[in-house]
Parts: sequence; structure tokens; C-alpha cells
Amino acid sequence: MHDGVLPKRKGILFVISGPSGVGKGTLKDTLLKQQIDIQYSVSATTRPPRPGEVHGEHYFFLSKDTFCQLVEQGEFLEWALVYDHYYGTPRSFVLENLQKGQDVLLEIDIQGARQIRHQFPEGVFIFIAPPDVQELARRLRKRGKDSIEAIEKRLSSYAEEMAQLQHYDYLVVNDRVEAAAEKLVAIMVAERCRVTRLIRGEDNETAFDK
Amino acid sequence: MHDGVLPKRKGILFVISGPSGVGKGTLKDTLLKQQIDIQYSVSATTRPPRPGEVHGEHYFFLSKDTFCQLVEQGEFLEWALVYDHYYGTPRSFVLENLQKGQDVLLEIDIQGARQIRHQFPEGVFIFIAPPDVQELARRLRKRGKDSIEAIEKRLSSYAEEMAQLQHYDYLVVNDRVEAAAEKLVAIMVAERCRVTRLIRGEDNETAFDK
Repeated sequence: MHDGVLPKRKGILFVISGPSGVGKGTLKDTLLKQQIDIQYSVSATTRPPRPGEVHGEHYFFLSKDTFCQLVEQGEFLEWALVYDHYYGTPRSFVLENLQKGQDVLLEIDIQGARQIRHQFPEGVFIFIAPPDVQELARRLRKRGKDSIEAIEKRLSSYAEEMAQLQHYDYLVVNDRVEAAAEKLVAIMVAERCRVTRLIRGEDNETAFDK
Repeated sequence: MHDGVLPKRKGILFVISGPSGVGKGTLKDTLLKQQIDIQYSVSATTRPPRPGEVHGEHYFFLSKDTFCQLVEQGEFLEWALVYDHYYGTPRSFVLENLQKGQDVLLEIDIQGARQIRHQFPEGVFIFIAPPDVQELARRLRKRGKDSIEAIEKRLSSYAEEMAQLQHYDYLVVNDRVEAAAEKLVAIMVAERCRVTRLIRGEDNETAFDK
């Protein structure tokens, strides 16, 4: 049974999200270096690339016109305006991979995660939190990519964002990036062992009636 | 927040179970060598010790009279008659550890796991399965500790036991013991990150209202 007889499971959608500046991007990059067999869904954005960011790898960097056109064509699974820039998740990449049983990773903001949750309630939603709010402020300042005004705006939405934790499946505190990435890998390994993902409705018989 | 402000969570009860001969004991021993901070609950039994088994470490080996007396005194969380021998889980060890926030591991048969599930629906139930039934038969014969008759009895209850899988949270196929132990560790790490275990009812405010 199992590999041979249990029906092939659908791909699992893993979503990592959390407050701006918590280190989601670095954590995701660290995670993708592990052996975990997951397809990362590259987001689209209208914000300008930061130094070192590559089109198609870190983001699809689009003009506002192109972005809005794709929105109208229904090409995004979710999209949101976050701190004056648009962000969106291309639809077909995610759906096609899940359909063929491939797990997919999204790294998105909290607004985006909320939209995805409505469409994929069976997804695995992981909230990345900073050790504390002071640490978050320090990281935002250290990153040096945001104005003081933008940092204040982010910190003020922090409490609101933390209140979203209750809608998530897992909490991973990003104290050390390697330790946090290990926890993410553990969550992925564990979710792949979940009985509810392996047994589905009328397919049960194939597992038991051997 | 988090370590400092989130309420201390209760201990998690991890239960590994599965058909006889699937290798639960070896898997548990391998698991306990990892760094996972868990208290193993030693079961009581009336079956005679196998070579190398130590009283108080592998089992509490009790006479039938003593066992039945403890049953009457309500000293077992669950007990069952399995293949002509009694097995039971001492109550106080488990409850005291969970109460003080310490995670506890049980390695018990399927009957016992069913009873525990009714008392601890919030426990984590992990079904250990053999790669296939032929492999189970091979392992039972190889172990050489059971009569042909006993082996046949076990194999006939295999299908019935496998049907219990649907009541478990996770399935771990014990193909290679090290790989299976790694999956168990991942499940433990993941469950400790579960938001529902970190946020509980009226305690929520301590997490959010900082």
C-alpha cells in the first residue's frame, strides 16, 4: 500500500506570510536551498527592484499598466496594493503545479494571504513573526530601503497584522534564519504525512481494500 | 511577544501506534536518541520480557494479579488485552508531565490508542505502517519471537488495524527506521508551532494586546 496504492495526493499549497520587514524573503531563500521538493511561485509587483533583485527570480517586475491589464484578465490568484505598490500571484503557475501533485510555496503579504485562504482553505498558512516589535523596527532601519515615514507606517500596522495570527495554522518566530527555516522544513515534512491529505473521500477503498 | 508573552502552552501528547510487528519499539528507541525534549511514558505489561528488555525502561513487567489490582485502583489511563497479554499506560506520569508543559510520548497498540484518543482528542496520533503487508509478515517471522499461529493471528487483524488509519492525524511508513524517525521529529517540531496550541481561548489577549 501507500506509495503504490494510496491515490496520488494533490499538491499542497504552503503560504508563508507575516508583517513587512520580518525577513520573509531571506527566510524563503534559505528554505529553497534545503532539499524539500517545492516549486516557488514568483510574485509580480510594480515596485522597483532592490539592488540584486532579478526579474523572474525574485519578482516579475511589471509596469503599473501591465499589472492592471493582467488583473482585468483574471491572471492573478490574488493581488493587493501594499505601501503604494501592487503585488500579485500569477494564477496558472500555482494551479497547474497543485493539479499535478507538486507542492507550491508562496511568500506573500498578509493581505494577499487572506485572499488565498478564502480560495485554498486546505492550504498550509504559516505566520512568520519577529522576536519582538523592537527587533522588527531595528530590521527595517537596518535594511535602509525605507524612509522613516514608511517605517512608521509599517510599525503602526504591526499590531493589526499580528492579530491575523489566529487565522494561520503555524507560527514560526524568525529569531535565527537557519532555525526558522528548519521549522519550515519540519512543517512541510509533517504536512505531507497528514492522513487527511492522503485519504480523500471515495478514494479510501484503494488504500484499505487491498 | 511569543516566548515572553504568549501563555506557556500545555504539554502535547504524542501517540505512536500501528499494527503489531511494524517496528514501533525500534522506531521509538531511535526517536528518543534525537534531540526532541520529550518524556517517554513507559507502559506496563503482563507479557514476559524479551531478551534485553529492562524493567522500568522498556516496560514495567507486572504479574497479572498486580496489573488487575492497578486497573481496579484506576491507575491506568488505558489498558487492553492484546494477544493474551495485558498492556496499560500509567496515568499519573502522563497527566503530571502534560500539566507542567512537558510533551509526552506514548508508544502503544491500536486498541490502547483508541482509548487515549477519547480522553485526549487534542493529542497527536501517528500511525506507523509497514511498507506493505508482505514486509510485515517477513518482520514478524524474522523477529522469531512469535509462533506461526500467533503470526497468522496478527496478519489476520492487519486489515482491521489498517482501517483505523482514518482516525489518526499522521501516517508514517516505516520503510527505513532513520527516515521514519526523522519524519516523527518533523511532526513534533511542526506541532509545537501550531497556532491553535499557542493561542487558547481567553488567553489570547496576552498575545495580542501588548
